[in-house]
Amino acid sequence: MAKHDKIDIGVSTSLNPVPVVMISSGSDEIPRNICTVAWAGTINSEPPMVSISLRKSRLSYDIIKSTGEFVINLVNKSLAKSCDFCGVRSGRDVDKFDKCGLNSYPAKGLDKAVAITESPLSLSCKVKDVIELGSHDMFIAEIVAISCDSYLMDDNGKVCLDKANLVAYNHGEYFLLGEKLGFFGYSVAAPDVFERRMRG
Amino acid sequence: MAKHDKIDIGVSTSLNPVPVVMISSGSDEIPRNICTVAWAGTINSEPPMVSISLRKSRLSYDIIKSTGEFVINLVNKSLAKSCDFCGVRSGRDVDKFDKCGLNSYPAKGLDKAVAITESPLSLSCKVKDVIELGSHDMFIAEIVAISCDSYLMDDNGKVCLDKANLVAYNHGEYFLLGEKLGFFGYSVAAPDVFERRMRG
Repeated sequence: MAKHDKIDIGVSTSLNPVPVVMISSGSDEIPRNICTVAWAGTINSEPPMVSISLRKSRLSYDIIKSTGEFVINLVNKSLAKSCDFCGVRSGRDVDKFDKCGLNSYPAKGLDKAVAITESPLSLSCKVKDVIELGSHDMFIAEIVAISCDSYLMDDNGKVCLDKANLVAYNHGEYFLLGEKLGFFGYSVAAPDVFERRMRG
Repeated sequence: MAKHDKIDIGVSTSLNPVPVVMISSGSDEIPRNICTVAWAGTINSEPPMVSISLRKSRLSYDIIKSTGEFVINLVNKSLAKSCDFCGVRSGRDVDKFDKCGLNSYPAKGLDKAVAITESPLSLSCKVKDVIELGSHDMFIAEIVAISCDSYLMDDNGKVCLDKANLVAYNHGEYFLLGEKLGFFGYSVAAPDVFERRMRG
């Protein structure tokens, strides 16, 4: 059992891997912006809800606090560099859409927020609550609409996110997904079901 | 721009990829259990905080509600099948530690919860608040200690999670991480820094 010798390390944000997504907010009157967050997650299934955590100092914090709306734009390989850029630069200094060559469209189901055209899938979110935690405030939101690129939909109308080349964030680094290990329930699946699902 | 033709799809929990972790709770007097959750995320940096969302019907819900403690155990390739099993079976029917051949140890910094020995990194969490959202309750918790396998630490005392073979969850499927695309700040890094960091 030498492999599992345990060391106690300092307390840090060590949950990994996590999502990394581009949050768009605002539009014409309220200037639009993009910020990158890894402190994001699904928190409820019915209704579908998410949380994102933002520092109060961020420009997007003010926009989202005043509009009560934001869009979670999933990040694929083509967007990875823009995603990183939007995490290190402030919208106070640069229009990130322009700088990254990105386009926007009015997010479905929202009044004041735009989505990023180049994202394969965008979730329109309405803020339900804001909880102060310390360095960050957590925005609890309901997903009210979802738009995705048409190429992700198969002939049966099923969205195939495995075609989207999505990016995960692991300990400060961006990764594509690699080897598929299984699907929900694979540990108890019949051999023929396992074979078929792992091929798909 | 045909590639970005947008389709509006039904509202669902489409944020991806997300973490997939094994939550251990309880110990001797309060029977220990493991459950698998993908609705987990980092929500604050200082102090480091996480949230996990659980259905009220889960055995682990009762244990965590009564003890105010749980452990987030990161999942690597070796644990993936056990992780899936702990997501589809209930601790009311089977001792999941025994069934999966897993071992436990008292989680550092907690009084009543065990960690999973076979996990490469385990975060000891104390519940600060529970918020009812609908199908799930969100447990907001502070990370009070972290234990990891000694092989993950390099000669400089830095934890190298890229050595851990961690698993991400994407749209109902388990994946290893694949191609490394960059690191935080790579979009604005000098060429020599980029070269060095991408080799590392």
